[in-house]
Amino acid sequence: MIKTVEFTSEGYVLLIDQRILPTEEVVVECRDYQQVAEAIRNMTVRGAPAIGVTAAGGVALGAQEIATADMAEFKRRFEEVCDVIAGTRPTAVNLFWAVERMKKAANGNFASVPELKKALRAEADAVLKEDLAINETMGNNGAGLIAAGDTVLTHCNAGALATAGHFGTALGVIKAAHLQGKNIKVFADETRPFLQGARLTAWEMMKEGIDVTLITDNMAGHYMKKGFIQKVIVGADRIAQNGDTANKIGTYTVAVMAKTHGIPFYVAAPLSTIDFAIPDGGHIPIEERNTREVSHVGGKQLAPTGVKILNPAFDVTPNEYISAIITEKGVARAPFQQSLEALRKA
Amino acid sequence: MIKTVEFTSEGYVLLIDQRILPTEEVVVECRDYQQVAEAIRNMTVRGAPAIGVTAAGGVALGAQEIATADMAEFKRRFEEVCDVIAGTRPTAVNLFWAVERMKKAANGNFASVPELKKALRAEADAVLKEDLAINETMGNNGAGLIAAGDTVLTHCNAGALATAGHFGTALGVIKAAHLQGKNIKVFADETRPFLQGARLTAWEMMKEGIDVTLITDNMAGHYMKKGFIQKVIVGADRIAQNGDTANKIGTYTVAVMAKTHGIPFYVAAPLSTIDFAIPDGGHIPIEERNTREVSHVGGKQLAPTGVKILNPAFDVTPNEYISAIITEKGVARAPFQQSLEALRKA
Repeated sequence: MIKTVEFTSEGYVLLIDQRILPTEEVVVECRDYQQVAEAIRNMTVRGAPAIGVTAAGGVALGAQEIATADMAEFKRRFEEVCDVIAGTRPTAVNLFWAVERMKKAANGNFASVPELKKALRAEADAVLKEDLAINETMGNNGAGLIAAGDTVLTHCNAGALATAGHFGTALGVIKAAHLQGKNIKVFADETRPFLQGARLTAWEMMKEGIDVTLITDNMAGHYMKKGFIQKVIVGADRIAQNGDTANKIGTYTVAVMAKTHGIPFYVAAPLSTIDFAIPDGGHIPIEERNTREVSHVGGKQLAPTGVKILNPAFDVTPNEYISAIITEKGVARAPFQQSLEALRKA
Repeated sequence: MIKTVEFTSEGYVLLIDQRILPTEEVVVECRDYQQVAEAIRNMTVRGAPAIGVTAAGGVALGAQEIATADMAEFKRRFEEVCDVIAGTRPTAVNLFWAVERMKKAANGNFASVPELKKALRAEADAVLKEDLAINETMGNNGAGLIAAGDTVLTHCNAGALATAGHFGTALGVIKAAHLQGKNIKVFADETRPFLQGARLTAWEMMKEGIDVTLITDNMAGHYMKKGFIQKVIVGADRIAQNGDTANKIGTYTVAVMAKTHGIPFYVAAPLSTIDFAIPDGGHIPIEERNTREVSHVGGKQLAPTGVKILNPAFDVTPNEYISAIITEKGVARAPFQQSLEALRKA
């Protein structure tokens, strides 16, 4: 069982270093909340739900570090901790969801600072535990969409490594279908520039004993045309009210290609990934990352020195390309504004 | 002026090593035809027209190496040389076109082996010289399709480095439009796995002083949706009678995305890239290359050891996605069977 995020008894945050998988398996121990913030920023940990869980642990750790017995002083410094964690990355809404949840937990009526710190620790533990449970439920909810013998294409990594661990979101659906004996095959897009597909999804599928074939991103359309792919399933970093979905750059192209070839395109994400505050995908901020992620691979320079590069980390897939959104509360279909709202209230 | 392929006075074949550009500019000297064959195979030289020119030079060099004065013996060994050169790569038809042209040149009435060798040398020189002239004409034929201020997306490298040098095919059109003062901008797909876009196209455009932005392949759709791209232009490795076009893997996806966004999609290629012997793209053999091109970049392992990988070097874009095919004889539009045939006879 893959453990992506763990909290030690001291409240430290343990993260499997996703920058160096699969050739090295190293666990990083973050002993203060600034280290946690940096680990989110530099993608030691990535994947919207995993970022959420890590953020919850980071906030609890930051609270623990505040050396005061004065409640007002504590609250002031706690806000600073929350701001630092929330400021690490802009797109995945689970980050803000987790920080808000920790803030809400701090709003109770506490007799002392140590009591409040204990409550925050318990809340972070709950966020982690719930994430594991949610993903298993989501996997089972989605497995019915996968037919026996299907080859399923996925983009980026929406697996155990994108969550607290174990199941994952999109790969959770694949794992659940696999556990049902459906004899699933997986095609994994390598997912430039960070190569989450090559490094993480391929590794996870091999660990689970699921038949996986790695391709470069620009091969997916070719294999759809040749009839190799029956389903597409991806995760999400933020879903708007109307179902428009921000996910790893390249997802939009996969969705258009799937529609062109009549292949169902599914998104699997917990409700915490749905941003009910925004009407559509036009309101999702898209992170631009360092161009060195494109120009260099493993320290090796691939492009001319000084060339202009763009590096948006995500794109937005309009809801018309999405066949269904799989959540822990059930499967939503168009019109998504209504179906997602119904799941929220369920 | 970029020189991709040159022949020395000794008949040796000089190739700029395209595996290590842009960080190193090294010219490889092939002193026998087996070295030429290996350079085509290992992609020291690549790009359909460049492969054709190199093959012509390789056949002339191989002929030169045959140490006999007996014409029958010479012809027998000459066939072997031609077979070795033709056997290097399966998709780009320019390779077979060039070998056939050299065979035809050998079929004249020669008084002696040295005279025949001299004719073959002259024929290879003509192939190279014609390639340079053809590309300049093609560039001017296509430049009218590019409007002032356009941002043009290209995939792989169909530039000077894909031809004997100087202009190139798709990039030749861009260069011609640039020389007409049209203030063109270029978006270059990096083009995994071999990264011809990042390594070669970006380098060429910078050398020409053309504004170029490098993106990963999976970003092209995102920027089309955002309205950044007005035209797409690519090269070709083989075009069937009906206009179906084999080109670098990922071209099909770019074409579908262009159509989805109402962006014209152009192919630029010399008539030697058109295989009038096959009715459609289903008859084009697609080369599968070593999986290490996907799993490793610059010697660095990116994917789990032992993972299954597919690595088709090309895909086929059906003619319905192609707005026009630009050749040295003029611009062909649908129905391509008729328009290409008319250009052949022109």
